[in-house]
Amino acid sequence: MTFGYVGIRVKSLEESIRFYTEVLGMKLTGRTKVEQTKGEVASLVSEDGGFPLELNYYQEGSPHAVKYTVGEGLDHLAFVVEDIDEAVAKAKKFGSREILEVRTEKSRWVYVEDPNGIWIELERTLSGDC
Amino acid sequence: MTFGYVGIRVKSLEESIRFYTEVLGMKLTGRTKVEQTKGEVASLVSEDGGFPLELNYYQEGSPHAVKYTVGEGLDHLAFVVEDIDEAVAKAKKFGSREILEVRTEKSRWVYVEDPNGIWIELERTLSGDC
Repeated sequence: MTFGYVGIRVKSLEESIRFYTEVLGMKLTGRTKVEQTKGEVASLVSEDGGFPLELNYYQEGSPHAVKYTVGEGLDHLAFVVEDIDEAVAKAKKFGSREILEVRTEKSRWVYVEDPNGIWIELERTLSGDC
Repeated sequence: MTFGYVGIRVKSLEESIRFYTEVLGMKLTGRTKVEQTKGEVASLVSEDGGFPLELNYYQEGSPHAVKYTVGEGLDHLAFVVEDIDEAVAKAKKFGSREILEVRTEKSRWVYVEDPNGIWIELERTLSGDC
């Protein structure tokens, strides 16, 4: 068994695709309408063969289009960036809110919000303690 | 920028580690207490060098230990399995609820719940349309 991808739900597919490609440098690999769920799905990866992030959108009338609250299930998505300040500036220019900065002796990481209110962690290396 | 890991919040670290290792075959690669957040973090992967799943637990008194509701941010986590029926049976034996089965001409996939109520998709190959 292998961990295949993570699927988040989004409020607007266009705006979320724009955030994950323009701010976080991902590439759109596919986009599919799913009749059964009255939904549309977009797949993104950071690099060829990389771990996919799936954006799930449900149109009005879909049984899955319930009220959107971020909730506690997803804590955060983490992205490794070359330059944290540059990445934060890019996110802010997009309209994202900066949530929290954490500094330890060894490292530093910053959380910003995606267009759905999901926390995105930006850090230079995966420190393993956040 | 690369997508580094996904972190979910869990209600019980022990029970969630048990689910992701025993039912979904992941390996525990590390476990760290985080003083700042009054939390504890466990990292898991399906294979060496694979994409990490981070389990975030917050003890009572942590500012992050707010009421747990799964919410809409995380739609689902997907796992590729050899035998869907065997995987579902294993999950049920653990105590997981089967939520939904979807069949298309080309494929079939089943959703079960993890101990936190998070939807886990089990499928044979990543079909790209779910």
